[in-house]
Amino acid sequence: MNIQNFFGIAGGIVSSVTFLPQVIKIWKTKSAKDLSMVTLFFLILNVSLWLTYGALIGDLPLMITNGIVLAMVLMMVYFKLTFKQ
Amino acid sequence: MNIQNFFGIAGGIVSSVTFLPQVIKIWKTKSAKDLSMVTLFFLILNVSLWLTYGALIGDLPLMITNGIVLAMVLMMVYFKLTFKQ
Repeated sequence: MNIQNFFGIAGGIVSSVTFLPQVIKIWKTKSAKDLSMVTLFFLILNVSLWLTYGALIGDLPLMITNGIVLAMVLMMVYFKLTFKQ
Repeated sequence: MNIQNFFGIAGGIVSSVTFLPQVIKIWKTKSAKDLSMVTLFFLILNVSLWLTYGALIGDLPLMITNGIVLAMVLMMVYFKLTFKQ
């Protein structure tokens, strides 16, 4: 594994877990008032673009990473709509 | 510009503006209580990895995108520490 792959994969792993603490915090506090729905929308658009880019260049790590992030962001949108505070 | 470049650059542009609405919302409401500091930490680690990866492969768009995102995340950490709610 060369150093470039290392950073690419490390970046992918970190990206995948990045939003987990935020999802857990919202779940625990049942509050997502301070989160910006516009930012969540951009996050969905963002990971969808990277997901498409990954598919086009056949980069599985990029697709897996952004698939996981997409799932977490969709959960945050669902919580924000559900915990209407 | 082939389609791969399009998605790469589009992803970069969207990534750069993604957190702007969140920074503005925190600034307006002076509240960042619902944001997870752990997620902000992972975001910093995440963009630092992608910044390093971009530098290693000499990919300027990747470096610019993640430089902008890093600045915005650092602002959110500063606000979260400042607006102590």
